[in-house]
Amino acid sequence: MIAASVVLEDGVVIHHPDLVNLYGCRVGSGSRIGTFVEIQRNAVIGRHCKISSHTFICEGVTVEDGVFVGHGVMFTNDLHPRAVNPDGSLQTDADWTMVPTTVKRGASIGSHATILAGVTIGYWSHDRRGRRRHPRCAGPFRRRWRPGQGRGPHQGCAR
Amino acid sequence: MIAASVVLEDGVVIHHPDLVNLYGCRVGSGSRIGTFVEIQRNAVIGRHCKISSHTFICEGVTVEDGVFVGHGVMFTNDLHPRAVNPDGSLQTDADWTMVPTTVKRGASIGSHATILAGVTIGYWSHDRRGRRRHPRCAGPFRRRWRPGQGRGPHQGCAR
Amino acid sequence: MIAASVVLEDGVVIHHPDLVNLYGCRVGSGSRIGTFVEIQRNAVIGRHCKISSHTFICEGVTVEDGVFVGHGVMFTNDLHPRAVNPDGSLQTDADWTMVPTTVKRGASIGSHATILAGVTIGYWSHDRRGRRRHPRCAGPFRRRWRPGQGRGPHQGCAR
Repeated sequence: MIAASVVLEDGVVIHHPDLVNLYGCRVGSGSRIGTFVEIQRNAVIGRHCKISSHTFICEGVTVEDGVFVGHGVMFTNDLHPRAVNPDGSLQTDADWTMVPTTVKRGASIGSHATILAGVTIGYWSHDRRGRRRHPRCAGPFRRRWRPGQGRGPHQGCAR
Repeated sequence: MIAASVVLEDGVVIHHPDLVNLYGCRVGSGSRIGTFVEIQRNAVIGRHCKISSHTFICEGVTVEDGVFVGHGVMFTNDLHPRAVNPDGSLQTDADWTMVPTTVKRGASIGSHATILAGVTIGYWSHDRRGRRRHPRCAGPFRRRWRPGQGRGPHQGCAR
Repeated sequence: MIAASVVLEDGVVIHHPDLVNLYGCRVGSGSRIGTFVEIQRNAVIGRHCKISSHTFICEGVTVEDGVFVGHGVMFTNDLHPRAVNPDGSLQTDADWTMVPTTVKRGASIGSHATILAGVTIGYWSHDRRGRRRHPRCAGPFRRRWRPGQGRGPHQGCAR
């Protein structure tokens, strides 16, 4: 389902609109959205992006232009998620702090990655597959590629 | 699809009933089920739970009240899954031992976690995100929070 | 959706054809396909396989007979995925090298596994759950089972 609240710019490709769940988000021109993808309200996808199947992009995520997001990638926006408060009452928006995440222009996120809330993924950064990102940028994101290496300059994690 | 065999108590919220696959399970009052979720027969979800998108809950799983299950969480109930027997014949129920799993009241399971069959996840336990649970409770589940720490008392893994 | 280009042999079981995305692939007789599964063109699934829910099987993957693929398994076929070229233009098929993957007869792939492009997963090989496979066969794939051990002979990774 693509809710009426979604803004799709020119040339967005969604082969199976009945098998996605998009609401309140914006998708830039020429981007492609795979099946079984959910994109929540207040998420922004740039132009010429590829969002692969089975991926979840939550509120508070900004994906800049030309980004590749692999299959089965899960973004998060809450470092301490709970269904209820200690007294058993249902949590409301007042019990929750949304932590934003940004994926910079040209980055590539491998399939099955889990993106911890609060990360900034750098320009043209690239992981091989399924690595986990967190604010301290441990793991492959510490690696810095020289310009011309791989398929584009890499500036690592911007934090 | 929500099969006729499903028992939904009062106030269950499922925004897209056409984009879930629920059959033979029970969901307690006030719980919320995200899109692209499958819940199998003989699974039980308590009251005031939140089951996030892209999650799979299999037969033999009991989720108590007030539990948060993140996005893309996979439960399992078979430690030695196979499609066929060594002679090539299809496996049947006689070739399979179902191993039950319990998630205790108030627990929070981070996005992308994989839950190995046979785990008991303790009252109000909490992982940051995507850790893997197994019967020996290695990793963050060994950690014990003092009462009042985080957002509720934590008793670690009950095993 | 099951596209007209899909070849389903006799006795294939797909409980919810509206909740899968199959196109240009072949599925062998007696195999079962779960919900929220995507199988791309030029992927081949053998006979008597079980492909569990939330799994993605991409172009270039060959799954032989009698294979179990768990829930939420992501195959890949590109070691350097990008949405765009360094000049910002959209990538086309000319910018991409497809790397094939084979899963040999009788193998079992645990839920949430990520399969790096180029792997060959050996006859009757078995992981417990969610391990990551890569061409050097690190991790549990190094383990060799003796004939009769487990539920079938294991030859490890064929590479």
